[in-house]
Amino acid sequence: MVTFKAEELIRIAVELLEAVGASADESLEVATHLVDSNLHGMDSHGIIRLPQYISSVERGEVKTRIRPKLIRSGGSTAIVDGRFGFGQKVCNYAMRLAIKKGRRTGIASVGILNSGHIGRLGYYTEMASHQNMLGFLFANTNLSVAPFGGRERLLGTNPLSISIPARKSDPVVIDLSTSVVAEGKVRDALVRGKSIPPGWIIDSQGRPSTNPADLYIPPYPPKQVKLGGALLPMGGYKGYALSMAIEMMTGILVGRTIESELHGGNCALIIVIDVRHFSPVADFEENVDQFIHVIKSGALAPDSHEILIPGEPEFRQQKLRQENGIEVDPQTLEELRYYSKKYRLKNEI
Amino acid sequence: MVTFKAEELIRIAVELLEAVGASADESLEVATHLVDSNLHGMDSHGIIRLPQYISSVERGEVKTRIRPKLIRSGGSTAIVDGRFGFGQKVCNYAMRLAIKKGRRTGIASVGILNSGHIGRLGYYTEMASHQNMLGFLFANTNLSVAPFGGRERLLGTNPLSISIPARKSDPVVIDLSTSVVAEGKVRDALVRGKSIPPGWIIDSQGRPSTNPADLYIPPYPPKQVKLGGALLPMGGYKGYALSMAIEMMTGILVGRTIESELHGGNCALIIVIDVRHFSPVADFEENVDQFIHVIKSGALAPDSHEILIPGEPEFRQQKLRQENGIEVDPQTLEELRYYSKKYRLKNEI
Repeated sequence: MVTFKAEELIRIAVELLEAVGASADESLEVATHLVDSNLHGMDSHGIIRLPQYISSVERGEVKTRIRPKLIRSGGSTAIVDGRFGFGQKVCNYAMRLAIKKGRRTGIASVGILNSGHIGRLGYYTEMASHQNMLGFLFANTNLSVAPFGGRERLLGTNPLSISIPARKSDPVVIDLSTSVVAEGKVRDALVRGKSIPPGWIIDSQGRPSTNPADLYIPPYPPKQVKLGGALLPMGGYKGYALSMAIEMMTGILVGRTIESELHGGNCALIIVIDVRHFSPVADFEENVDQFIHVIKSGALAPDSHEILIPGEPEFRQQKLRQENGIEVDPQTLEELRYYSKKYRLKNEI
Repeated sequence: MVTFKAEELIRIAVELLEAVGASADESLEVATHLVDSNLHGMDSHGIIRLPQYISSVERGEVKTRIRPKLIRSGGSTAIVDGRFGFGQKVCNYAMRLAIKKGRRTGIASVGILNSGHIGRLGYYTEMASHQNMLGFLFANTNLSVAPFGGRERLLGTNPLSISIPARKSDPVVIDLSTSVVAEGKVRDALVRGKSIPPGWIIDSQGRPSTNPADLYIPPYPPKQVKLGGALLPMGGYKGYALSMAIEMMTGILVGRTIESELHGGNCALIIVIDVRHFSPVADFEENVDQFIHVIKSGALAPDSHEILIPGEPEFRQQKLRQENGIEVDPQTLEELRYYSKKYRLKNEI
């Protein structure tokens, strides 16, 4: 593993993105987001995605230098058409718009369609919390999850994020999929030749399985994979119900266009609530601090070393990695070097 | 079991509520809500609660003939102080207000504090769907759930409901607690002398248990019970995270008052999204119909007979019970007769 400082990794990403035609601004937005995911310990959403983004631009699936377009705008709502630009640029724009509207009326919602991959959801909801708001983000994803009682992949892992501002503490940042696990964890077990716990997946016949290979149709990862079986929703019918709700709040409410179906672009819905329309900000945030303190001070379960607040492990990683740097896996490094050579960048990676 | 027609049960409930001082209007609101829960097959939220409500009024914990008070109101937000009136009256009022505001700006949120027991959450979110809106309702409840990694009861079962309108189909109505199960299911197993599946509860030492008695401190139900162990959050840290979010969106955001702490009144938060601010209503609702059709037509898992849509079992029950009547358990019947005698009602139960 080679270790990079965050700033260095951002510089590399910016250069590569500019090399494929992205503007300086959007390159910085995308690069900052990806490296921020690495800083938070979420490597699956980090720099590992850059080669994929570059190849999407090369294939014309993601478009550079595209302005998101406001296709509807009302008192507390809007829809943003990303026009297949970088997801980070689209979602930053949409969240800033939601914050502006929410500041005025107390709550606002902005839908996003035709967006590239938006990355780590908590990044955006945290933006709202830095403005003393509760931030919510829901997104639909590719079909990989079976409905409760079914065996076909009819739902996405449809994740959600909620961020709540505190005063002295870091904000509480929830970021979770509505499936038991994300697909990446099953893929990881497959690559390492390990079995997975019962309850994560079913095979193509709908039978419970602990063999990660049952989720896929050969050839296996890291080549392009097809899903054979399906992931299971978290908590049985509860995760299934939430996943359905998120599909309807994003894909159906924000609107499928023929264009988006062809491009496979996903949809998302932002909601922000401005604390000051409900309560003095200081009171609210101090009560959140106190609540965090009460939860963290609770008696531990046997074998538990600590009660963690949602987002806390990621903020700890951030402090560590800001100092010690970010390890980049050999395959990603090789891909970055390949593109660096291809586009004749002068700085070596 | 004695069976009653829904209308008959409503009449009985109205008479009893009026007998303890409730107005004709609020009696009808509460009675209709409770019997509607029975119709939907959710007997735990049905007429079984009436003796508890009556006794709350007698003890002065719930106040009759109280108007909910609007203590804050902005462009798309409001806070309603229930002033310890009947929860159904308070929550109906708050939901109607949210619908009115949401119609104008596209999204609205109304917080509720100092409310009596609000009953079945799906009842209110469905009101929004009858107005072509997505309805959301979050509520905090008494402490009974351990945080992930902890063993103390520091969170409520903090339920949520989401209702989404369809065109030909019934709306999709999600109504679930963020714990693995509601406390009532553990109590039910205890009363029947049965064990419970692993993963539902921990005992007072934080150890996994399949003995429902471990959740309680004797004397056991149906007398007043204290919790010994704790319920577990659904899906481990995911349910824990959602439960924390709901506590902050309700108890902390809507505001704890000294009065509410003393009375043990719970808080709730409504969000409504008006479909027409995002999409033509017919398009949206037809797409929901089609989505429901796709999910229901999916291949079944082994041992599964059908894929059910959230809310579907309850709507089926509603049709059946509307026709065949509602069975009332002997204990509830006895309590109703006790109060009927106490207040010298002329109609016999």
